[in-house]
Amino acid sequence: MSATPQDPTPTVDGSAGPVLTGPSETPYDAAASSLAGHVQDSVMAELLSIRSSIDNIDATLVFLLAERFKATQKVGFLKAEHRLPAGDPGREAAQISRLRRLAGEAHLDPAFAEKFLNFIIGEVIRHHEAIAEGLPVPGDIQPGVVGTES
Amino acid sequence: MSATPQDPTPTVDGSAGPVLTGPSETPYDAAASSLAGHVQDSVMAELLSIRSSIDNIDATLVFLLAERFKATQKVGFLKAEHRLPAGDPGREAAQISRLRRLAGEAHLDPAFAEKFLNFIIGEVIRHHEAIAEGLPVPGDIQPGVVGTES
Repeated sequence: MSATPQDPTPTVDGSAGPVLTGPSETPYDAAASSLAGHVQDSVMAELLSIRSSIDNIDATLVFLLAERFKATQKVGFLKAEHRLPAGDPGREAAQISRLRRLAGEAHLDPAFAEKFLNFIIGEVIRHHEAIAEGLPVPGDIQPGVVGTES
Repeated sequence: MSATPQDPTPTVDGSAGPVLTGPSETPYDAAASSLAGHVQDSVMAELLSIRSSIDNIDATLVFLLAERFKATQKVGFLKAEHRLPAGDPGREAAQISRLRRLAGEAHLDPAFAEKFLNFIIGEVIRHHEAIAEGLPVPGDIQPGVVGTES
């Protein structure tokens, strides 16, 4: 199997050309690369194969993150309903410790896992601040969520 | 089903008490909470149920991220072997555009999806810089990877 800049397939399903996602959208080109024309066909084919896996992982990450925000939103509603404090330091400490351990099992840098959790917490807080200030909330997050849950 | 500070279960499998992960590790307590003792049993049970889903999602995220770094590491080796440039602006632009679109489908803020990709890219670059400087690389990332691939 080869892929050249003139023939920038393969796509995942083996069909030719970029996948059209809708009449008014820019199609995603899985073979988009500034390296096109500067690389052997066989090398480019191997690169595209690995990138295809990265693309699948990224799609999974996006949908999984969306699901996570739905869950923290539920917690937010629950906390608001019962007038519970936004933060929960005991919970956060347990989460961080667990994620660092899991990262070790996955051969991932534990410090990165902790940084990642803090990155997500930051986004949750940002959503809640937007709600508190009466600003539009990104995505489909519903108004009324005041609890901060990481 | 109820859960109180005196009985901080349920665990996922219904067994009692925190899960012991090894003889020398601190056990993970899925019911760890600074709210313990300040919340109705039924509310705490609902909170723990949602948190159990968040914990499952977080574990999946950690293992998925580990897999993603394995893939970018492969690309790094390939680029190093064929002396290809580290960055690929054409690829990055296509990735960002796609992730924003997928975020929309998932009801996730597209700006967050882009920020997330940049966060990951930052980590990949940090790994590669550590390698270039001869520093220990976090996790199990192998030395010799010089390409930057997001």
